[in-house]
Amino acid sequence: MENPITVEVTRGQLVESRHRGMAVVVDADGSVVFQAGDVDAAIFPRSACKAMQALPLVESGAADAFGFGYRELALACASHSGEPEHVAVAAAMLKAAGQNESVLECGAHWSSHQQVLLAQARTLEKPTALHNNCSGKHSGFVCTCVHTGEDPRGYAGYDHPLQEAIRSIMSDLTGAVLSRDTCGTDGCSIPTYAVPLTGLARGFGRLATGKGLEPIRAAAARRLIAACMAEPFYVAGTKRFCTKLMQVAPGKIFAKTGAEGVFCALLPEKGLSFAVKAEDGATRAAEAMIAALLARHYEADSEERHALMALANHGMTNWNGLAVGKVRVTDVLFH
Amino acid sequence: MENPITVEVTRGQLVESRHRGMAVVVDADGSVVFQAGDVDAAIFPRSACKAMQALPLVESGAADAFGFGYRELALACASHSGEPEHVAVAAAMLKAAGQNESVLECGAHWSSHQQVLLAQARTLEKPTALHNNCSGKHSGFVCTCVHTGEDPRGYAGYDHPLQEAIRSIMSDLTGAVLSRDTCGTDGCSIPTYAVPLTGLARGFGRLATGKGLEPIRAAAARRLIAACMAEPFYVAGTKRFCTKLMQVAPGKIFAKTGAEGVFCALLPEKGLSFAVKAEDGATRAAEAMIAALLARHYEADSEERHALMALANHGMTNWNGLAVGKVRVTDVLFH
Repeated sequence: MENPITVEVTRGQLVESRHRGMAVVVDADGSVVFQAGDVDAAIFPRSACKAMQALPLVESGAADAFGFGYRELALACASHSGEPEHVAVAAAMLKAAGQNESVLECGAHWSSHQQVLLAQARTLEKPTALHNNCSGKHSGFVCTCVHTGEDPRGYAGYDHPLQEAIRSIMSDLTGAVLSRDTCGTDGCSIPTYAVPLTGLARGFGRLATGKGLEPIRAAAARRLIAACMAEPFYVAGTKRFCTKLMQVAPGKIFAKTGAEGVFCALLPEKGLSFAVKAEDGATRAAEAMIAALLARHYEADSEERHALMALANHGMTNWNGLAVGKVRVTDVLFH
Repeated sequence: MENPITVEVTRGQLVESRHRGMAVVVDADGSVVFQAGDVDAAIFPRSACKAMQALPLVESGAADAFGFGYRELALACASHSGEPEHVAVAAAMLKAAGQNESVLECGAHWSSHQQVLLAQARTLEKPTALHNNCSGKHSGFVCTCVHTGEDPRGYAGYDHPLQEAIRSIMSDLTGAVLSRDTCGTDGCSIPTYAVPLTGLARGFGRLATGKGLEPIRAAAARRLIAACMAEPFYVAGTKRFCTKLMQVAPGKIFAKTGAEGVFCALLPEKGLSFAVKAEDGATRAAEAMIAALLARHYEADSEERHALMALANHGMTNWNGLAVGKVRVTDVLFH
């Protein structure tokens, strides 16, 4: 099926570029309350599902054993910008487990965010694995292995017991059958499993509701989601979209982006779970889509709806600060 | 009409993201020899048409008066990376006309290319207008005004005589009627005019063939295209796609990118002109599309086709250098 145009980018009086996408919202029972596009197609959640991948850290007791609070748990679910605070918390997590950055298997990269990159360039010869946007997740993986007595070496591999555990969790939460055939390698080298967008939304919904989960898993999920909502800076960073979405209604919105145009979100109090994917993988489209879908579920005149729609539909300026165009969602998503 | 899927991005065994696009190839008579998607839709050429915007610099005699060679002319057609050589040539162009960077109206920005940005961060407090990717074009604008006796102040504005001249040239070359209604403001603050993709391709074809142009314009156009092909580094920069495309067959391929997924190219000896636009504005898609279309016009076993297809279809690696997926064109473009 054709995916509808969900986001337009204008310049002057014309539409310059168009993004197509898939979007789904499910309620606390997992019933679809909104859908657009091919929501049954399998997509790679990429980093959007980090909160699922962080469950073993809490379920195993590692987080408690190492005294981790909301910041550490938020960072374990993060795609952070590599700001000094992010790097410091990742390093402290590893230190708590008697480890250091040499054990990380995520690779190193400069920050993807210009202001952070400029600061890094002026203070670092080169970035380390601690600066990788996934260093909190990987530090959580290492801590889990150390606590459970598994050898952390090779923890990013498909056959490592930790990845087997995560595979089982992902299958449990999303209802999807996962195997090597539907597995890709993520940017940080761990497996990423293709799942239908609706399954991803239902899986996130279960993180919030705990429905159908073992009590220990339900409790771990609630704690991770609470951590992200309490410490949104540690989930992303300064001026980052995930952080801004969660700051719209502190403690009431969970949101997490993934590469190639994926975004997931929760409104736990409303029992709603959201997942979107831009067909072309564009982050700007996924951001607009998730913000508009969240906005639909706030009252028309509310501050939250206003703030969310300002994130969905926004002007673009050029190098001189002149207004040149807009990013806006189509009435497929909001009208 | 629906634009076809022209580029796929894979991960593991699956297609993770899909790009739709429009593409057209015209021959020396302006006849369409290949088309895909809605090639009659008006698109903003953005920086892809800089060679057209540089015509007054040569036609007016300014380029000769200031002693500009191929490097200066290539830079006048460039979206450069802000490398030291680019900045130096732009500064020298302005100096030749008795001006300096304070007259530039393009605004300032850090390089969009990470290696250059890292070097800039370590040597500059902040970038100037000379580092703007359009500084060569703008320096050419200033030189044109100085030579013709126009006041350069306000040269970026819709009503300035220079922009009126460029509007007339763009209309002459593309056959499109241009007005405020179809005008947007570009990243560097000058007007950009929406034209049908086929008109853009025909306009580029005229730059190479000179057909239907006044002799002075035909000669200026040939000189600018020759300059770009002779100095591809000055059209873009280190590891940049325009530069790499032109290096595949020195002196035989002209190529220029534009923001929001536009790419134009010429094979002057074959009398062929190319224009593509990614529906979603993605650069990676436009790059793959233009490379594959150029490849079609070389012999199956030729080095040129091999090199161009390696630019069109290429593997992607992650932070650890592991192969994770591919960018590849669909059989809409190449089979």
